[in-house]
Amino acid sequence: MSVIRLGYVHIRVADLAESAEHYQNTLGMDRVAEADGRHYLKSWDEHDHHSVVLEEGGVGLVKLGYKVESTADLDLYEKRARAFGTTVQRMSAGDNVGIGDGLRITLPSEHVLELYSDAEYLGNATGNWNPDPWPREGLRGIGVPRLDHTLITTESPALLERFFSEVLDFRAAEHLVGGEDNEDLIASWMFCSDQPHDIAFVKGEQGKLHHFAYHVDDWSSLRHAGDLFSMRDVPIDFGPARHGITRGETLYFFDPAGNRNEVFAGGYRTGPDFRTITWTMDNAARGINYTHRELDPDFLNVVT
Amino acid sequence: MSVIRLGYVHIRVADLAESAEHYQNTLGMDRVAEADGRHYLKSWDEHDHHSVVLEEGGVGLVKLGYKVESTADLDLYEKRARAFGTTVQRMSAGDNVGIGDGLRITLPSEHVLELYSDAEYLGNATGNWNPDPWPREGLRGIGVPRLDHTLITTESPALLERFFSEVLDFRAAEHLVGGEDNEDLIASWMFCSDQPHDIAFVKGEQGKLHHFAYHVDDWSSLRHAGDLFSMRDVPIDFGPARHGITRGETLYFFDPAGNRNEVFAGGYRTGPDFRTITWTMDNAARGINYTHRELDPDFLNVVT
Amino acid sequence: MSVIRLGYVHIRVADLAESAEHYQNTLGMDRVAEADGRHYLKSWDEHDHHSVVLEEGGVGLVKLGYKVESTADLDLYEKRARAFGTTVQRMSAGDNVGIGDGLRITLPSEHVLELYSDAEYLGNATGNWNPDPWPREGLRGIGVPRLDHTLITTESPALLERFFSEVLDFRAAEHLVGGEDNEDLIASWMFCSDQPHDIAFVKGEQGKLHHFAYHVDDWSSLRHAGDLFSMRDVPIDFGPARHGITRGETLYFFDPAGNRNEVFAGGYRTGPDFRTITWTMDNAARGINYTHRELDPDFLNVVT
Amino acid sequence: MSVIRLGYVHIRVADLAESAEHYQNTLGMDRVAEADGRHYLKSWDEHDHHSVVLEEGGVGLVKLGYKVESTADLDLYEKRARAFGTTVQRMSAGDNVGIGDGLRITLPSEHVLELYSDAEYLGNATGNWNPDPWPREGLRGIGVPRLDHTLITTESPALLERFFSEVLDFRAAEHLVGGEDNEDLIASWMFCSDQPHDIAFVKGEQGKLHHFAYHVDDWSSLRHAGDLFSMRDVPIDFGPARHGITRGETLYFFDPAGNRNEVFAGGYRTGPDFRTITWTMDNAARGINYTHRELDPDFLNVVT
Repeated sequence: MSVIRLGYVHIRVADLAESAEHYQNTLGMDRVAEADGRHYLKSWDEHDHHSVVLEEGGVGLVKLGYKVESTADLDLYEKRARAFGTTVQRMSAGDNVGIGDGLRITLPSEHVLELYSDAEYLGNATGNWNPDPWPREGLRGIGVPRLDHTLITTESPALLERFFSEVLDFRAAEHLVGGEDNEDLIASWMFCSDQPHDIAFVKGEQGKLHHFAYHVDDWSSLRHAGDLFSMRDVPIDFGPARHGITRGETLYFFDPAGNRNEVFAGGYRTGPDFRTITWTMDNAARGINYTHRELDPDFLNVVT
Repeated sequence: MSVIRLGYVHIRVADLAESAEHYQNTLGMDRVAEADGRHYLKSWDEHDHHSVVLEEGGVGLVKLGYKVESTADLDLYEKRARAFGTTVQRMSAGDNVGIGDGLRITLPSEHVLELYSDAEYLGNATGNWNPDPWPREGLRGIGVPRLDHTLITTESPALLERFFSEVLDFRAAEHLVGGEDNEDLIASWMFCSDQPHDIAFVKGEQGKLHHFAYHVDDWSSLRHAGDLFSMRDVPIDFGPARHGITRGETLYFFDPAGNRNEVFAGGYRTGPDFRTITWTMDNAARGINYTHRELDPDFLNVVT
Repeated sequence: MSVIRLGYVHIRVADLAESAEHYQNTLGMDRVAEADGRHYLKSWDEHDHHSVVLEEGGVGLVKLGYKVESTADLDLYEKRARAFGTTVQRMSAGDNVGIGDGLRITLPSEHVLELYSDAEYLGNATGNWNPDPWPREGLRGIGVPRLDHTLITTESPALLERFFSEVLDFRAAEHLVGGEDNEDLIASWMFCSDQPHDIAFVKGEQGKLHHFAYHVDDWSSLRHAGDLFSMRDVPIDFGPARHGITRGETLYFFDPAGNRNEVFAGGYRTGPDFRTITWTMDNAARGINYTHRELDPDFLNVVT
Repeated sequence: MSVIRLGYVHIRVADLAESAEHYQNTLGMDRVAEADGRHYLKSWDEHDHHSVVLEEGGVGLVKLGYKVESTADLDLYEKRARAFGTTVQRMSAGDNVGIGDGLRITLPSEHVLELYSDAEYLGNATGNWNPDPWPREGLRGIGVPRLDHTLITTESPALLERFFSEVLDFRAAEHLVGGEDNEDLIASWMFCSDQPHDIAFVKGEQGKLHHFAYHVDDWSSLRHAGDLFSMRDVPIDFGPARHGITRGETLYFFDPAGNRNEVFAGGYRTGPDFRTITWTMDNAARGINYTHRELDPDFLNVVT
């Protein structure tokens, strides 16, 4: 029994056509459905119906969907979430196109988190019969293979970590701590898989999105992405660079509405016996941008 | 509840000193203990006591160790294994240096598989306090970060797959099938994590080792490994090349005793909802060596 | 005064349509002209009219073109070639589409070498006004940027080296020597630029082509090429691998007619003060295929 | 007849011991001589006596050395330089440790440029007898293979370009132009080889150094360099990033005295028939930092 992965990110964008162009032609996602003024997008190596939903109007996060292993899990998570004191609603198949029954939880951070076990299976672009390692018809733009994780902001990272730990069995791979005696949890990177993070949160405004990230193959993918962003006038936040936290290789950028995206490669392998790594505030810049050891204040302040 | 990962591979080597040189100086592992004529080795990014055991005398596999999440799991696995009709013994802390109580199972393939939940924690080389992404004192040789998976041979892949599925909750990421109507399972790649494989087996002699693999960062690591193997006269089997199966990037080689090793990078992300990929025998060479689409018969025949 | 580079390779192919498909869609060259049953092809980062000519009928090399700096150079090279005892003819603008006046020399190896100083300028695909690093409309197939060098066979490498040295001012970067006291020159890699080789020759049949090579960006380009060759059933000879000689990274393959091609990356910088490196026959396999230290006899025997 | 390459950069550093540590242990150069309070350093793949000279006291450039093909060339260059109206002196073997007779020219930009044809040959670290592609004893730090180019500042790039063109036969690969009708030459990248640049100059203060650069293998070398700079507290200016100008991949950093260094990979192939590329001021940021399309003013203002 476990949460499997970040299944989808549902965001608002100022201009649907302009953002669709970014997600489809620059990032290379496919539009699999369009309904009620929303675009449903899937990366080439994802199997479920969609992983990104674009909704016109403004900017920022509408909600996150995490997929769980079975319907039975939903009952347990519901019970635990209620015991935690969280608002939980049941959602029905079709509330989200291609997604089955599930739970809609309002996190202590005021973000909406949906849990579901069923999604319409579309399969990836290479199929499951003697497949090629990538689609032989080629990829559009970066050709992101799959969604990876998200980073959200909250007034109380400690409370949110407790929720993800107690209710959803996530574990913390890394902590950023501050305050006297390093007793304040400033940020936490948590996993439900073998990755260094499937979700992360950093102290800040309730209910906001810092970024969501796609996994890409390796360091050479970041060079290609950087070139393409230049050709297509995509604003870069920082990178290509190394993360200290997660050890990943990173390039941050913005969609046309101002939502921050990341392409992320590398990272170590975790697991249930992984012992949490601690970063202290004097090393925070190095933790986030290991290469340059400095952070533009906007990196922390700009959230959507 | 789950099996976490391949924890250790215990092998025989003809000449302990010669093989120790290979594993320590060419692969870059550290010797953490030496007892009863055995060397216990650990890669720099592993946390538990050891991942490779070298025992003098001959060649081939003595046994495999897979770590499980908790002691309670051991009871369940024992019950299931007995129900499956398998020989299971209890093993005691100290039977293996640094490893706790556990089970010793004789697989239907005649390999010995040990399950354990406790291992002495040594920590990795970068620590868990504001760590660097790799040890700043540098790495020896390739500097393999961690063990990844193993491939063993058996007369009945189908039976062994059923064991790993029913007793240990592994899932099959990929199948190689043959015979009339593709009804014979020739090989199976199974995972207990999010990787494409934590263990694999291919039809062949009972109780034999085809290879065990280390995970390395990326394609450029394989170039470095190939250069180093040339400098140190390490025999290469094949690669650098792409796998069709797992999509990984690979380089196969032999230790001085003749045991086959692999350095492996890349591969996709699996999970409990992953649908098994099928390869047919007419595509077997492409599945294993996607780049060259041909296999030296020795690749299949040489096992230890 | 100097020879600038390998300007074009003119080869025979069994089936023009089939080979055009290979050179255009798999390698990514553009067809710039078609006349008299010949296809003239240009890579995206080349500026002159063409670099490869395909002529229907058989297999093998028709001739090589090397560009020289100025018309005045041609007079000197003609004089020197005659003094060397070589057959030299004048060729006229238009003898080759898009190529100016020049010399046609029958080398001591019986290959035809053309020298010319003028070629129609078409410019590369990114232009010379605020250019992108690669064409933003994307590349077809591998998208080879440019021709690099060629390797031909001759009964007397020493004689051919003397010709290239005395007549054309090439220098030897590397020698492969054999025989008693290592006095026989088996192969020579010569440069007229800063590269490790602009032409090379190995002992063998007179007048034959071993391969011609394209330069590609780096090691990750070879992975991409290998994947693509698998998708398109292009036979691979060997690689991805490291060369000992030139230190380059290599992948050898065949066009549909059986002419050997190479994609080549890396290599050191030479210059007029470079001292020739020597390889001995006991290290020949390592020199050519540093990674695997073995050569398929066909690699040496198959020429066209 | 030609200038071969940038042979050495002689700089001032505030603290010799501290800078020696940087150049030897972080960059990986070898100290080959020490005399009169100067350290002479050589990279592993260089053959001549040294390529960097460190002199205690302050910061900035003392002089540049470019190697020419033959002693006879020196006479011609002297004649041409005098005709250009430049101050030229003869320098003697031993004026610079390991360097032969030559010319000492005060450029129109007030930099001192030395030309020489002889340097003591030490050979590279892999030798010229069946060599490995890199030293099997390993590399220290980044292990830079060789010096590549330098960028200096001058009040009149046009005048300096005319000097390098008329006196030394350099050619311009790229121009950055500004002013009305783009008639002002703001910067020029010139080559005497097949590289995109062997020297470059940008409008600014007379006699100053913007940076000097080492060539490294590829994009993955920049990741390694960035990691190492973080471990060793080396200040990074910008990168890893793509250059628009030269297409190279870059990472800029500072030595302990404040002299700017670069590790540089990639770039296209030039030659005597290369047509100059033009960049306009509205694209200057993209030309220099193609990835991020923005320049910290300090990148242009900080020179030494």
